Amino acid sequence: MKIGIVDTTFSRVNMGAMAVDEIRRHASVAVERITVPGVKDLPVACKKMIEERACDIVMALGMPGGVDKDKMCAHEASQGLIKAQLMTNTHIIEVFVHEDEAKNENELAWLAERRTREHAVNAVKLVLYPEALVKEAGTGQRQGFDDAGPARR
Amino acid sequence: MKIGIVDTTFSRVNMGAMAVDEIRRHASVAVERITVPGVKDLPVACKKMIEERACDIVMALGMPGGVDKDKMCAHEASQGLIKAQLMTNTHIIEVFVHEDEAKNENELAWLAERRTREHAVNAVKLVLYPEALVKEAGTGQRQGFDDAGPARR
Amino acid sequence: MKIGIVDTTFSRVNMGAMAVDEIRRHASVAVERITVPGVKDLPVACKKMIEERACDIVMALGMPGGVDKDKMCAHEASQGLIKAQLMTNTHIIEVFVHEDEAKNENELAWLAERRTREHAVNAVKLVLYPEALVKEAGTGQRQGFDDAGPARR
Amino acid sequence: MKIGIVDTTFSRVNMGAMAVDEIRRHASVAVERITVPGVKDLPVACKKMIEERACDIVMALGMPGGVDKDKMCAHEASQGLIKAQLMTNTHIIEVFVHEDEAKNENELAWLAERRTREHAVNAVKLVLYPEALVKEAGTGQRQGFDDAGPARR
Amino acid sequence: MKIGIVDTTFSRVNMGAMAVDEIRRHASVAVERITVPGVKDLPVACKKMIEERACDIVMALGMPGGVDKDKMCAHEASQGLIKAQLMTNTHIIEVFVHEDEAKNENELAWLAERRTREHAVNAVKLVLYPEALVKEAGTGQRQGFDDAGPARR
Repeated sequence: MKIGIVDTTFSRVNMGAMAVDEIRRHASVAVERITVPGVKDLPVACKKMIEERACDIVMALGMPGGVDKDKMCAHEASQGLIKAQLMTNTHIIEVFVHEDEAKNENELAWLAERRTREHAVNAVKLVLYPEALVKEAGTGQRQGFDDAGPARR
Repeated sequence: MKIGIVDTTFSRVNMGAMAVDEIRRHASVAVERITVPGVKDLPVACKKMIEERACDIVMALGMPGGVDKDKMCAHEASQGLIKAQLMTNTHIIEVFVHEDEAKNENELAWLAERRTREHAVNAVKLVLYPEALVKEAGTGQRQGFDDAGPARR
Repeated sequence: MKIGIVDTTFSRVNMGAMAVDEIRRHASVAVERITVPGVKDLPVACKKMIEERACDIVMALGMPGGVDKDKMCAHEASQGLIKAQLMTNTHIIEVFVHEDEAKNENELAWLAERRTREHAVNAVKLVLYPEALVKEAGTGQRQGFDDAGPARR
Repeated sequence: MKIGIVDTTFSRVNMGAMAVDEIRRHASVAVERITVPGVKDLPVACKKMIEERACDIVMALGMPGGVDKDKMCAHEASQGLIKAQLMTNTHIIEVFVHEDEAKNENELAWLAERRTREHAVNAVKLVLYPEALVKEAGTGQRQGFDDAGPARR
Repeated sequence: MKIGIVDTTFSRVNMGAMAVDEIRRHASVAVERITVPGVKDLPVACKKMIEERACDIVMALGMPGGVDKDKMCAHEASQGLIKAQLMTNTHIIEVFVHEDEAKNENELAWLAERRTREHAVNAVKLVLYPEALVKEAGTGQRQGFDDAGPARR
């Protein structure tokens, strides 16, 4: 079992290091890490992690900026990540933190860390404990900010 | 004949359980179910259900949030689901309930259940009784809220 | 020569029946028809008509609703239809009538019928009389409402 | 060497005829021409020109209307044209003239002709004289309206 | 090791020449350069550089105009570049400078040069010194304008 981690130099938080750390806490698996310039470079990098380095799942970590052009980049990257998954029949967990989701740098760093760590746990569950996710179905899980919880009737 | 069900932990309603229940009422078929974190994880999960678990049709169940970023995620997921279908020549019935379609949590839960159950019937018809759908052609069917009905001349 | 017709139960007009009727008036060809729930189910259904039922051309008939979410569904369906064509090297004539193109139900029914019938003629020309289309090049043809005509200099 | 020309009956100017004429002025190559109903029919038609009629490059000529729905059609067509190129490793020169780029029918006809002819020259250069394009790199070339020219420092 | 450079005649700055120059300063590698008309022609041109000219990485250089239609062209080009990468398992570094990012022609020329040169360094690192990028992970690197830097906690 091998988990791939790909992050960016564009991000203002070292999300890759956090992902590696969190995965190590939950599973004894091999971990490979690389870094690319920005989110648009993630899709091919993740696909190469799967096809050239035999990763069983990959985390794609990025921090898109807050202006319209950045939103479009994130959108294009997301489409590419979905395509890469379909071409490889392998999950790639996208962890994007948009700079404008946080009120200040401090919250941004907090949010990036928490979302990265919570998604690292999801990645481990997806490949090692899929039945754990079925138990959480429909419970309004969120990564980063608080969970929404199930809708009360 | 095997029907696959994929839902999410992000959803605030256990749509997967409802889909399994409804399918069981209408057909004696095998049913496989898995759960992924969010709607963007659905495309590859559905494709794997088809290619690795031999499903003849899959239901992709999700509940996108109400803000712009969530709408974009739903759009990307939908594009991926269409692509997955084209790559496999197999139908994937998308059942998305947008959080802002309902006025409150109670209606959200009601809508998610009704849309899921009505689409489960569609899935059964598509693989077992396709001629039943031809009879409903152009009749303004809706899933969840009331049917629009045929346009009167 | 075989022409495939795929329409939806979502549509408020039986566009599939009209397409079959119009094609029969213009050509002695085999016609296959199926119906799916909505426009997002059209791409894979059309691809299956080409690859599993040997259709030489397919008409994809749908009636997207008038709100933003419906526009997005139509957009995703259109992208899928183009992709399906590229994967099969076969034309799929998209005939979409947006509910908000018409002022009332009566005009909607009229528009859906006229656009469907005019595009059925296009489908016949594309596979049987391609030179007829070259003669109409640049003449501002429209399907449904009046033609725009050539730009006068 | 063979150049393919695909235009539409939707266009209000016979762009296909102009492209054929201009190419003949610049190169002794075979030319194939077909016409399809609208811009969304261009991607598969161009791909068939490449794969079934052995064209070395294709010009895709269209005139999208001025309303939002037309803009979306043009966008979908453009995405399809790029995909067709990637699937064939062959250039397809997109020549789209938006109806709302011109103030009146006279200017529309003028613009369509000039843009078509200038892009026909580009198509010839791409397949026969690629080094001529390198000499124009970064010079702010435009097709139709006046060139922007290089940015002065 | 061979690096491909593709730029456009539409651009108002000779970005291709700058990229070639910068790469030569940092690595003793073969460099191939071609020029196409506009950004939408970049995806297939880059893919051909990889598959027909054996480039190990490609830089795609373009300068989209400032109006809405130009933004859409850039978006379509970006999607195509990501797709080309996924089809080839090879990085293509997109370097787009939007005309409206700069206040005047002078700044536009400055920005295009600086972004091109900084991304040329990224391209060299990606293929020759990938570990150098891991060291910059999460440091808020920008190409062109000033770096954002890491988020302070």
